[in-house]
Amino acid sequence: MVLEKIQKPNDVKKLPAWQLPILASEIREFLITKVSENGGHLASNLGTVELTIALHRCLDFPEDRLIFDVGHQSYTHKILTGRKDDFDTLRKYGGLSGFPKIYESDCDAFGTGHSSTSISAGLGMAVARDLQHRKNTVVSVIGDGALTGGMAYEALNNASLLKSNFIIILNDNHMSISPNVGGMSLYLAGIRTSQHYNELKDNVRSALQGIPGIGDGLADHISRTKNNLKQLMVPGMLFENMGVTYLGPVDGHDIAALTQIIQDAKKLPRAVLIHVRTQKGRGYEPAERHPEFYHGVGPFDRETGRQTEPVRKTWTNIFSDILLRLGEQDNKIVAVTAAMPEGTGTAAFGRRYPDRFFDVGIAEEHAVTFSAGLAREGYHPVCAVYSSFLQRGYDQILHDVCIQKLPVIFAVDRAGIVGRDGETHQGVFDLSYLRMIPGMTVIAPKNMREMQAAFQFADCFQGPVTIRYPRGSCITSLSEYNAPMVYGRAEILFAGSDAVFFAVGSMVRTAVHAARILSAEGISAAVVNLRFVRPLDRETILRELSAHALAVTLEENVLAGGVGEAIAAMSAEEGCGTRILRVGVPDRFVPQGSPEELKKKLGMDAGSVAARVRCALGRKAPEAAQGAEVPAAQAAQGRADRQAPEKPADSPEGPDGSGTPGEQNRGNR
Amino acid sequence: MVLEKIQKPNDVKKLPAWQLPILASEIREFLITKVSENGGHLASNLGTVELTIALHRCLDFPEDRLIFDVGHQSYTHKILTGRKDDFDTLRKYGGLSGFPKIYESDCDAFGTGHSSTSISAGLGMAVARDLQHRKNTVVSVIGDGALTGGMAYEALNNASLLKSNFIIILNDNHMSISPNVGGMSLYLAGIRTSQHYNELKDNVRSALQGIPGIGDGLADHISRTKNNLKQLMVPGMLFENMGVTYLGPVDGHDIAALTQIIQDAKKLPRAVLIHVRTQKGRGYEPAERHPEFYHGVGPFDRETGRQTEPVRKTWTNIFSDILLRLGEQDNKIVAVTAAMPEGTGTAAFGRRYPDRFFDVGIAEEHAVTFSAGLAREGYHPVCAVYSSFLQRGYDQILHDVCIQKLPVIFAVDRAGIVGRDGETHQGVFDLSYLRMIPGMTVIAPKNMREMQAAFQFADCFQGPVTIRYPRGSCITSLSEYNAPMVYGRAEILFAGSDAVFFAVGSMVRTAVHAARILSAEGISAAVVNLRFVRPLDRETILRELSAHALAVTLEENVLAGGVGEAIAAMSAEEGCGTRILRVGVPDRFVPQGSPEELKKKLGMDAGSVAARVRCALGRKAPEAAQGAEVPAAQAAQGRADRQAPEKPADSPEGPDGSGTPGEQNRGNR
Repeated sequence: MVLEKIQKPNDVKKLPAWQLPILASEIREFLITKVSENGGHLASNLGTVELTIALHRCLDFPEDRLIFDVGHQSYTHKILTGRKDDFDTLRKYGGLSGFPKIYESDCDAFGTGHSSTSISAGLGMAVARDLQHRKNTVVSVIGDGALTGGMAYEALNNASLLKSNFIIILNDNHMSISPNVGGMSLYLAGIRTSQHYNELKDNVRSALQGIPGIGDGLADHISRTKNNLKQLMVPGMLFENMGVTYLGPVDGHDIAALTQIIQDAKKLPRAVLIHVRTQKGRGYEPAERHPEFYHGVGPFDRETGRQTEPVRKTWTNIFSDILLRLGEQDNKIVAVTAAMPEGTGTAAFGRRYPDRFFDVGIAEEHAVTFSAGLAREGYHPVCAVYSSFLQRGYDQILHDVCIQKLPVIFAVDRAGIVGRDGETHQGVFDLSYLRMIPGMTVIAPKNMREMQAAFQFADCFQGPVTIRYPRGSCITSLSEYNAPMVYGRAEILFAGSDAVFFAVGSMVRTAVHAARILSAEGISAAVVNLRFVRPLDRETILRELSAHALAVTLEENVLAGGVGEAIAAMSAEEGCGTRILRVGVPDRFVPQGSPEELKKKLGMDAGSVAARVRCALGRKAPEAAQGAEVPAAQAAQGRADRQAPEKPADSPEGPDGSGTPGEQNRGNR
Repeated sequence: MVLEKIQKPNDVKKLPAWQLPILASEIREFLITKVSENGGHLASNLGTVELTIALHRCLDFPEDRLIFDVGHQSYTHKILTGRKDDFDTLRKYGGLSGFPKIYESDCDAFGTGHSSTSISAGLGMAVARDLQHRKNTVVSVIGDGALTGGMAYEALNNASLLKSNFIIILNDNHMSISPNVGGMSLYLAGIRTSQHYNELKDNVRSALQGIPGIGDGLADHISRTKNNLKQLMVPGMLFENMGVTYLGPVDGHDIAALTQIIQDAKKLPRAVLIHVRTQKGRGYEPAERHPEFYHGVGPFDRETGRQTEPVRKTWTNIFSDILLRLGEQDNKIVAVTAAMPEGTGTAAFGRRYPDRFFDVGIAEEHAVTFSAGLAREGYHPVCAVYSSFLQRGYDQILHDVCIQKLPVIFAVDRAGIVGRDGETHQGVFDLSYLRMIPGMTVIAPKNMREMQAAFQFADCFQGPVTIRYPRGSCITSLSEYNAPMVYGRAEILFAGSDAVFFAVGSMVRTAVHAARILSAEGISAAVVNLRFVRPLDRETILRELSAHALAVTLEENVLAGGVGEAIAAMSAEEGCGTRILRVGVPDRFVPQGSPEELKKKLGMDAGSVAARVRCALGRKAPEAAQGAEVPAAQAAQGRADRQAPEKPADSPEGPDGSGTPGEQNRGNR
């Protein structure tokens, strides 16, 4: 095994060149094995094996800086920097991250997760290097998908002024999710299919001749003709026009060619972009055929390629059905996605109503304001974005949608603890960043049925509405509670005298479970499904606060700026004096792990909630009270018209749904 | 007067062409007169008079859609759409907005304020038009500065797929604030100075020939050669490469040429960019010479060009001095601005330390992550951005800076009520959007001296720190209160028994004023300067809460997600039972007006605060209690070591500082 010789950073440089293809093949085998066992990102990593090997042949670690945009394609880099043996813990709590992490290895130059950040970070590092008169190399690896993100362009625009070397690798796998990712994609396709590939060497040479001291005499002569001719001769003129030297395209699976071009690029005293053509999923036939299914994948059978965990109906699936139905009943409904048609569940709508479906590329800012433009003309856009990615559109939501009161529906998926992708992908800020914006309405449905009602409500509502729901299997229980959806009105599930739970969305089930646990111990808790996070149902909340000495708020969101604080403020303003415990994400970033274990660690599971209530009420824990699965019991007291439920709700969240194939693939992210 | 003939939309189309230059001249005269009397945006409006006239000759209002990026260049549009007589109320409370507003006129297609949104909005409107089979024209006018913003590129990328007409006017006034706004700027400069200007007609013709049915025969012949030659012949290849048809450049002060090219552009069934060269400040000699000083300007003497209101030392000025000093004592300090070197006060640092100063263009997302890259390499970047513009970098602050705990100092200017620019520019969300992010430290200094201490603290601190301060004159009073700056510790100004004020930054002075008013009435209020908004000084807050039946929180920020809610949550968690009133921006967008009148209307001035306290305590208002200027009196009771101040603090905020020349100009915004 050649791979056995790779134990620490830079070991790959000791191998003879002829062993490198063998190494690549062994790494592929390793990746397929590990990901099929544990899940993870596959297709993007299979596509960048040779590129990463070539980079490691040309760079010194940790002195040189290698930044992977988005970062899920960094597995080979992890293997080559001494982390191979950690792959059994990949994406598990406390284990190896699926993304680069500066605190995991000093070979991870910059942590990534969201798209299009790598050129900005790399440029900052290149500038810092120059200020310190160091000579290390800085390389950012960015996909063609991530290049549609605006901040990549902002950074390219800025990079053009650099007077020293900075290498940007454009990892172009031609893997655009949908045909309409825009002009840049068409432009790159044009280069890929052009004859210019053979002119690679000339291209490099003419670039080199521009460097003082290398080929001054000839360069002078060439530069005059170049000004007239290079537009004809040189592919990548778009980048050249922006002031970034373009090299390529080069075959991303040819280690020798890659090594040569990277070495050449290192000599250029400016920002240089190397256009590398790779194949996503390379070397694993099912992934080559359906790279989108092997983007983020759960454990699978490597022979058949089929996933080994059962598929459940997710919130995304339900949304997808709802969107289709809305589209049928209301021809003003249009759907907007930022390069995530599958992940957000908008693809089916797009197939049924192609004219009313817009995939704008990885471009959340544009997605939001584009939606605002559609809304201004009488359409009712459903802008479907993951919670953590919508952070990119925060200003646009405020400035373009809410100030103008435009009726855009934000379908915010992955809102809450998402699990194995870790810190960068947890959708635990949206309630806070949306709740502060005047004019916004925020609904968090407790289950499938309420989600349907929420979208029906939003379709009839004139103004910006957010409907947020978590990742994973949809909650179908609690369907016996289905009070009509009225603007700004909460739903009382059942009454109770000792405490009241105010719960948001997915946490309503947790509140019900906690109430059952407590009920079995003779503690009677009311459960209110807030439903509208904004505006809050002040009347119901104040009534319940004044009726209880203890209140508990539950939300899958950071506590800071969350619903709990808002309710505490209402209480304090009215002088209710109710003691309020807040359940939610405390003041730290949530690492990777399964949602269940993370919720437990954060004190957000039913057992932990019950324990806090018990403690606050000064009761002792019964010997049997250890988990959420205590048989339901009658609520002790309560209003006559409502009772605690007799039949148990469904069990707590099943296994992490991360095994679902089709987990979103965004171009080359 | 030709201008008298313009009373309502489309009137300009009735004028004979020879009167148009006269109209332009009269509009210039009108603009100079009105802005010299009342203040406003001048240079950008003087530069777009002919362009706007030409657009109004070619468009029908309100059917056609005209979107002004940023929007402060829309004065001529307002004049031409029947709003001339409202200019005496320009930027005043309840008056004419300085920006387009959809609720002000149906001729304002889309509200703007922040940069780079117009292509996204326009594209949405063009798509909506096509879906409805309407035929109206959609035009977005965007400056060369705004074109460096990433979302403009996201939108261009998406626009290239349009199969119908959409016109983007690139208003290129060559007015880049600093030389380093990047590759796009150099590229545009290259076009401007090239010989291609004369080829305009050929350019238009060849574009027209591409349209089916117009010049098929010839076009076919040309298109083959075009593929080989157009890169040589056609300027604007960068846009062409992205799939957007480029026309121009054209003289932006030649109404006939402009009208012709716009009419031509309307015939193209795709997205087309018209490159218009304009001169900022045109027609007013002082503004031509120093357009940056006449960007946003207060009342001035039109003969001399000198402003007529006194200049005060602003928070920005103080920051500028501090930054210089930090740069001197610590060579790891670098400064980053997003096209606002003057407005943010970083220009002086840039002149002194050009190698350590980075103006990245209008590109807040990149600015933040670029800073993160610098910080990762051991530098200590001060990223200076206005509060409302930093909303664009929210995700990057969270994802690139805070998750990685990188020591970036955010100098957040214009944090609070900014006044006459209205809804889009109020900096009243930053406490909420920053306070929710784990690992962030947020300091709001009460006065100049504390601001100096805050930056000294930040310089020594390892981690992300925000220091936020408002627009306008710096507070220099309260300098007798200068407890040492300790991480997470509040400062108790003075004690009091009836109530306690917890105040943030600029609201500390308001709290002191309110305490004096109350003191004169025999009501004793303690005043705590929170200083650290994050982390809050839990110990001090809980101690004060438990010692008082009434607490008042004061912040120049929205109440939702603000400090008041956080303190209420602490109180409720501990069961303090203290009644808490929250002073801050209630749940609506704050319109234009002077900061003083806005604060009064929002109940955020000392008199209003005192009245709320009085009411909460069940006291009657004394006959004399009408304003903030009640002589100071001894605080009734309090801890032995602290007393209410005997000498009065300085008077409430002086006149709105909007008269300051040098109010930030960002390229062509």
